[in-house]
Amino acid sequence: MVASGEKKGKVILAYSGGLDTSCILLWLIEQGYEVVAYMADVGQEEDFEAARAKALKCGAVGFHLADLKREFVEELIYPAVQCNAIYENVYLLGTSLARPVIARGMIEAAVKEGCDYVSHGCTGKGNDQVRFELAFYGLAPNIKVIAPWRLPEFYERFAGRSALLEYAAKNGIPVTQTAAKPWSTDENLFHISYEAGILEDPNQTPPDDMWKLTTSPQKAPETPEQVHIEFSKGLPVKVTFPADKKEVTDAVDIFLTLNALARRHGVGRIDIVENRFIGVKSRGCYESPAATILRVAHMDLEGLTLDRNVRALRDQFITTQLSQILYNGFFFSPEREFVTAAIPASQKTVNGLVRLKLYKGNVIVEGRDADEGLYDAKFSSMDEMGGFEPTATSGFIEISSIRIKAWGRQNVKRGQGGVSPKDVYHRE
Amino acid sequence: MVASGEKKGKVILAYSGGLDTSCILLWLIEQGYEVVAYMADVGQEEDFEAARAKALKCGAVGFHLADLKREFVEELIYPAVQCNAIYENVYLLGTSLARPVIARGMIEAAVKEGCDYVSHGCTGKGNDQVRFELAFYGLAPNIKVIAPWRLPEFYERFAGRSALLEYAAKNGIPVTQTAAKPWSTDENLFHISYEAGILEDPNQTPPDDMWKLTTSPQKAPETPEQVHIEFSKGLPVKVTFPADKKEVTDAVDIFLTLNALARRHGVGRIDIVENRFIGVKSRGCYESPAATILRVAHMDLEGLTLDRNVRALRDQFITTQLSQILYNGFFFSPEREFVTAAIPASQKTVNGLVRLKLYKGNVIVEGRDADEGLYDAKFSSMDEMGGFEPTATSGFIEISSIRIKAWGRQNVKRGQGGVSPKDVYHRE
Amino acid sequence: MVASGEKKGKVILAYSGGLDTSCILLWLIEQGYEVVAYMADVGQEEDFEAARAKALKCGAVGFHLADLKREFVEELIYPAVQCNAIYENVYLLGTSLARPVIARGMIEAAVKEGCDYVSHGCTGKGNDQVRFELAFYGLAPNIKVIAPWRLPEFYERFAGRSALLEYAAKNGIPVTQTAAKPWSTDENLFHISYEAGILEDPNQTPPDDMWKLTTSPQKAPETPEQVHIEFSKGLPVKVTFPADKKEVTDAVDIFLTLNALARRHGVGRIDIVENRFIGVKSRGCYESPAATILRVAHMDLEGLTLDRNVRALRDQFITTQLSQILYNGFFFSPEREFVTAAIPASQKTVNGLVRLKLYKGNVIVEGRDADEGLYDAKFSSMDEMGGFEPTATSGFIEISSIRIKAWGRQNVKRGQGGVSPKDVYHRE
Amino acid sequence: MVASGEKKGKVILAYSGGLDTSCILLWLIEQGYEVVAYMADVGQEEDFEAARAKALKCGAVGFHLADLKREFVEELIYPAVQCNAIYENVYLLGTSLARPVIARGMIEAAVKEGCDYVSHGCTGKGNDQVRFELAFYGLAPNIKVIAPWRLPEFYERFAGRSALLEYAAKNGIPVTQTAAKPWSTDENLFHISYEAGILEDPNQTPPDDMWKLTTSPQKAPETPEQVHIEFSKGLPVKVTFPADKKEVTDAVDIFLTLNALARRHGVGRIDIVENRFIGVKSRGCYESPAATILRVAHMDLEGLTLDRNVRALRDQFITTQLSQILYNGFFFSPEREFVTAAIPASQKTVNGLVRLKLYKGNVIVEGRDADEGLYDAKFSSMDEMGGFEPTATSGFIEISSIRIKAWGRQNVKRGQGGVSPKDVYHRE
Repeated sequence: MVASGEKKGKVILAYSGGLDTSCILLWLIEQGYEVVAYMADVGQEEDFEAARAKALKCGAVGFHLADLKREFVEELIYPAVQCNAIYENVYLLGTSLARPVIARGMIEAAVKEGCDYVSHGCTGKGNDQVRFELAFYGLAPNIKVIAPWRLPEFYERFAGRSALLEYAAKNGIPVTQTAAKPWSTDENLFHISYEAGILEDPNQTPPDDMWKLTTSPQKAPETPEQVHIEFSKGLPVKVTFPADKKEVTDAVDIFLTLNALARRHGVGRIDIVENRFIGVKSRGCYESPAATILRVAHMDLEGLTLDRNVRALRDQFITTQLSQILYNGFFFSPEREFVTAAIPASQKTVNGLVRLKLYKGNVIVEGRDADEGLYDAKFSSMDEMGGFEPTATSGFIEISSIRIKAWGRQNVKRGQGGVSPKDVYHRE
Repeated sequence: MVASGEKKGKVILAYSGGLDTSCILLWLIEQGYEVVAYMADVGQEEDFEAARAKALKCGAVGFHLADLKREFVEELIYPAVQCNAIYENVYLLGTSLARPVIARGMIEAAVKEGCDYVSHGCTGKGNDQVRFELAFYGLAPNIKVIAPWRLPEFYERFAGRSALLEYAAKNGIPVTQTAAKPWSTDENLFHISYEAGILEDPNQTPPDDMWKLTTSPQKAPETPEQVHIEFSKGLPVKVTFPADKKEVTDAVDIFLTLNALARRHGVGRIDIVENRFIGVKSRGCYESPAATILRVAHMDLEGLTLDRNVRALRDQFITTQLSQILYNGFFFSPEREFVTAAIPASQKTVNGLVRLKLYKGNVIVEGRDADEGLYDAKFSSMDEMGGFEPTATSGFIEISSIRIKAWGRQNVKRGQGGVSPKDVYHRE
Repeated sequence: MVASGEKKGKVILAYSGGLDTSCILLWLIEQGYEVVAYMADVGQEEDFEAARAKALKCGAVGFHLADLKREFVEELIYPAVQCNAIYENVYLLGTSLARPVIARGMIEAAVKEGCDYVSHGCTGKGNDQVRFELAFYGLAPNIKVIAPWRLPEFYERFAGRSALLEYAAKNGIPVTQTAAKPWSTDENLFHISYEAGILEDPNQTPPDDMWKLTTSPQKAPETPEQVHIEFSKGLPVKVTFPADKKEVTDAVDIFLTLNALARRHGVGRIDIVENRFIGVKSRGCYESPAATILRVAHMDLEGLTLDRNVRALRDQFITTQLSQILYNGFFFSPEREFVTAAIPASQKTVNGLVRLKLYKGNVIVEGRDADEGLYDAKFSSMDEMGGFEPTATSGFIEISSIRIKAWGRQNVKRGQGGVSPKDVYHRE
Repeated sequence: MVASGEKKGKVILAYSGGLDTSCILLWLIEQGYEVVAYMADVGQEEDFEAARAKALKCGAVGFHLADLKREFVEELIYPAVQCNAIYENVYLLGTSLARPVIARGMIEAAVKEGCDYVSHGCTGKGNDQVRFELAFYGLAPNIKVIAPWRLPEFYERFAGRSALLEYAAKNGIPVTQTAAKPWSTDENLFHISYEAGILEDPNQTPPDDMWKLTTSPQKAPETPEQVHIEFSKGLPVKVTFPADKKEVTDAVDIFLTLNALARRHGVGRIDIVENRFIGVKSRGCYESPAATILRVAHMDLEGLTLDRNVRALRDQFITTQLSQILYNGFFFSPEREFVTAAIPASQKTVNGLVRLKLYKGNVIVEGRDADEGLYDAKFSSMDEMGGFEPTATSGFIEISSIRIKAWGRQNVKRGQGGVSPKDVYHRE
């Protein structure tokens, strides 16, 4: 253990058990802080007990492990499903959604432990530092943050991996000597992300063995599998497998069940160049299995059950805004509270069942059913009269065309339109 | 041929060669109109010469066949690709995009022929009647529209298919006695649509043999196929197949080549309950092969080459609005002119190449490359310093958190937040 | 009284006591309907008892008078104040806001009376017909509407005012022989509107004696008057006059008090060419006295108490959308429910007091005060350090400029920018 | 003159002639820089020759004075008029609009002089530092910025006004010993701003003698004055005074003429608590005389000449976005280029004349006229048939109500609506 200098106070550190945060733990102690290590279980694959032992060996005065899986699913993931949250049309926000629950857990622990400081091992270029710190400040505006990778005294001292390894060794901390993968990952029950390393070349195809969660579509089963998902007020409440009548109804179980299903069938791989909040572009690969299925199913059911205008307004305002808010790390903010206030009003009628077929990377809608009554074949049928008089449509078109005719007449007057042999229409 | 009554003027009729529009042709003549039949070749599979013969046999005083494929691709489809147009997140607007070019062709022919009237065979419940008529009025505000399926004297007389068949027979018009499919279709080079009939039950899975354009993913080749698409200012300008070095550069050829590719690999099937402009929900199935590939490729390249804020503004304003404008039939309108005015400014930097792999319904991005310089690994790299000082991010977060801390302090003051043992954070 | 024909059912008629609706009442009876006359007191100047007598004399089987002033103020007007509702930047929606409460009152009465029909005297070109009927259908989807001014059998028979006068006389209904004003008006406690007649020329300055509610600014007092308005959660809860310490706290009283104040000082006149829902432009003049004061005060207080991002999102989404929804008559709709669901979340912090001075048409903010804590002079002060380190702003600007520099470098590369003697900046 | 240290390079300094920038000039020389002083004439009241002499006396190696008034009016102000730019519904952006032309002028001068550095005297808490620096970086991405008020070595040394005065005196720089006003100002031909000092209390009424540009409404003439403004494509092209037939047509003259007019009549005072880009609230007072008149006139003419849907889309997208972009300092950015690309398309029809009356703070529209043809009294007239059949509106309403009835029926089914004695309507 390092010799600590003057006593500076108590820090809660987001600890992963890895080399970086172990060195940060040691370094914080060296700087004179008491350190409490904090780990959140958000569904990642991890040896939590080994991490606990390591933290304590490093000199942590406490270790907190919090199981946040249920609040992650219920408070963060499902509202995102309800409004089809997506960043830049592709990224399903798996990391962004986990950060608020972890930050909240840390602040809760900080209070219990009487910590004045929060620390983390995020780099100075990514989104996560912002997400964590804005969440800390939103929850505990007077908390002080120590971000070693943004402190010259830290990042200049530990400029490369070897410096970290040496520091750990010197302090008697064992480091797994597995060869580092040529990319970084972040995992939780929603997804895994891959970035940095060889992926920094956006033209580098991710190697097959990078993908950890999902089977490759090419290796997925030849036989499709069917699943039914039932929604209530836009939330998934039951998953049924018609093949064996298996039913799942618990919120977390539903998500994990769909994860397993999607993984089997090669569903949920994403490869994107995205725009970070700090204004740089970066390339990320993700696997978001269950989320991909839920997105398809929920949007499909909205087609059947959600009013057109509510859907359009929701898409344009809530979906876009909330996705940016989540991505940029403003979950604990007045604008997030404002934006989410309208979600329940948009989901009152989103009740019903979607039937899906999974096959080699595809999520195919086979049918949907609801008892909501916004869909009425009598009205839409091309084959029969019903619902309203066709003559009404004439009036509708006549009124709808008033503006258009006025504009058309202007164009004619300007020689840009009209039924004349010379200049019949306005071609730009 | 029917005996015509008093002379009422000259009509141009959107003619398909089918039973409905043949009967309308006959009926218009019966009402005292001279009728010019009009057919647009927008890439649908059709025996145009048989249709010509039939129209003339029905008594048309003229027949126009216009090849509009190039203007369809260049003036309608590619601008839609440039702004990732999509309706209700799923429908790629294949029918909506064809209507304006057809309507424009009809008005051009109407002028040449001196027609005061335009007629069509659209039903009184669909979107197409609106799209056609608003386009007619925008181009030729004084044109008069005859929509027989909204005229009681027509739709009451021809209440069922048998009445139409009988009327055709009585007038010596041969009708192909093939059994009608239990759905309706509309085809062009962009897509084919299926609706009505058995599809009106939204829970009815479309039968396998309905899909006409694409191979089923299950029957698609076991071997993936690669393709490279190069864009210039957001427009596809070259398609290359690395397997055999084949290159395609003509705008129409590119689209048709991608169509063939996507069809082979089961790409582009859509099944949706959508909201028509007249306010009813209807179920539609579509195959949009090339458009699906282009959408994936274009959006991916924008990740690498388009500024973040331009992208976000474009997504929220142009994409959403233009998609609604197209769907609702307001192509020839001041708002469409306004909205599209900003597209070129958004695509200046969208230059580069996307490498894709097609496999059993999947369009997988394998890499992308561009010479635009907005992406710079030095800035985003997690592994090395570069681009900017990590300390700058501290300032960025500090300033970005000013609002958040103020809000957090309010919550603390109200007992809804803060690092206190009692009420640590604001849980809603 | 006219002899009624076959019995067709019971109608509730929006009755005003004027010539038009009296003739409609007579005509409906003539057509075989039983008619219940309905009047809503929404604060207009009206002799309700004379109207009752006239309706009964016309043959109405019942007469309903409902005082809807409080629900008009509390349920319609104040939510509009909370989100600064305004149509096309100028019109404060006084008629649009009254229609939903009147329509709701009518449907309530229709139920009590067992009416299957609703009727009104709106013309076929205006917004009010749409607002009334959409509200009827939203509340009672199976109700049947009789809109005589859209029925050829009515409007052709009563083509001019003289035909109506003659019809009334023939049926023994006295008509006030005052000369009609050369414009139409609609009045309620929120505003009065003037349109049609000489106002149809948009270049016609409204005559001085047209304005009924407000003193002309030129004739308003030479001495300004001060008023303080206190808001709680965005709602006005107390009005105080510092001159005489008079206080008003009741919701309706507050509105009426501000009306009287604004009328004295020539505040609230509007003259606009606006776009009706049916797509025609029309010219309208309005006096909205209290609403004008409340708009200034509420927006000012939001400056002090509302978070920046919440304000911007609310302005762009709620304010714009709700204003269009109200104007177009979709108050009883899913989209209105959706949009208003977010209002309370936006107003939590809008608590405080605004001090105003009224003077000859001007509403001048003299100061505002709140205990919310989002404003902190320590942070904004140019004169002293405080709140945050100036160096933090350097980091903020450095990070904020990453995108801008990347774009600038592209421009330089293309010869469109950069510090070079030749082509220094990008001038479009 | 201070003794300069080692040579560090050449700096262009935004110089005002005042105490702060004179001390910065001296200090930069002291640090080893060569300094070129730069002043932009954007219409502020200033003794430029005195400033030149002072800069040279301070030791500047060069002095640039650029008359940017025309480009300020034509390139910045008038596009803002065209889209009714406004920040937070109140602030007309007078400072924001001047910054880009000044920054551009500085970079041009920097290139001519071969400067590698740009410096300014903005504080570390305001918007202007951001606006200047982002503009510098957008135009010249490799330029280096020296912001002394954000450098501890500067701001700690010159912590108060007396330290600056002493430093100036020591270096032989005369300082006008007028008592400083208890607020700061920034002036250009568009406006003057007042902030800081006693104004930091948002409840402090600005003293009468603060307002410099405009007469107080109370002291303005008793007699109204009329003016006519003619627009072409949304730009003011002629101002006429009917009283004396005086006409003005030059772009800059028009603006200055309207300034003089508005100042006489007490038009254009603003008092607001606004949200700065860095996230703090601050109180600002402004006088924007001509801009206030142009805003009223332009918006009024759009009522007569601009299509409804174009207006609504423009308001929601361009106006809001551009105002934020300008306020936050992103004029030289891809998003600004994108947003402004659509302005011309929105102004094609905004041609015509607005007649106004100015009176004691009021800008009153007396009429407007245009030859555009979008307004047609025949369509809107309540008094006569014309334009379209009233029966068409029945169809329009019937179709428009399909969604609403479906929603209403759902509510009935749920016991929340319908014509039933029990639960007649949905009251929230």
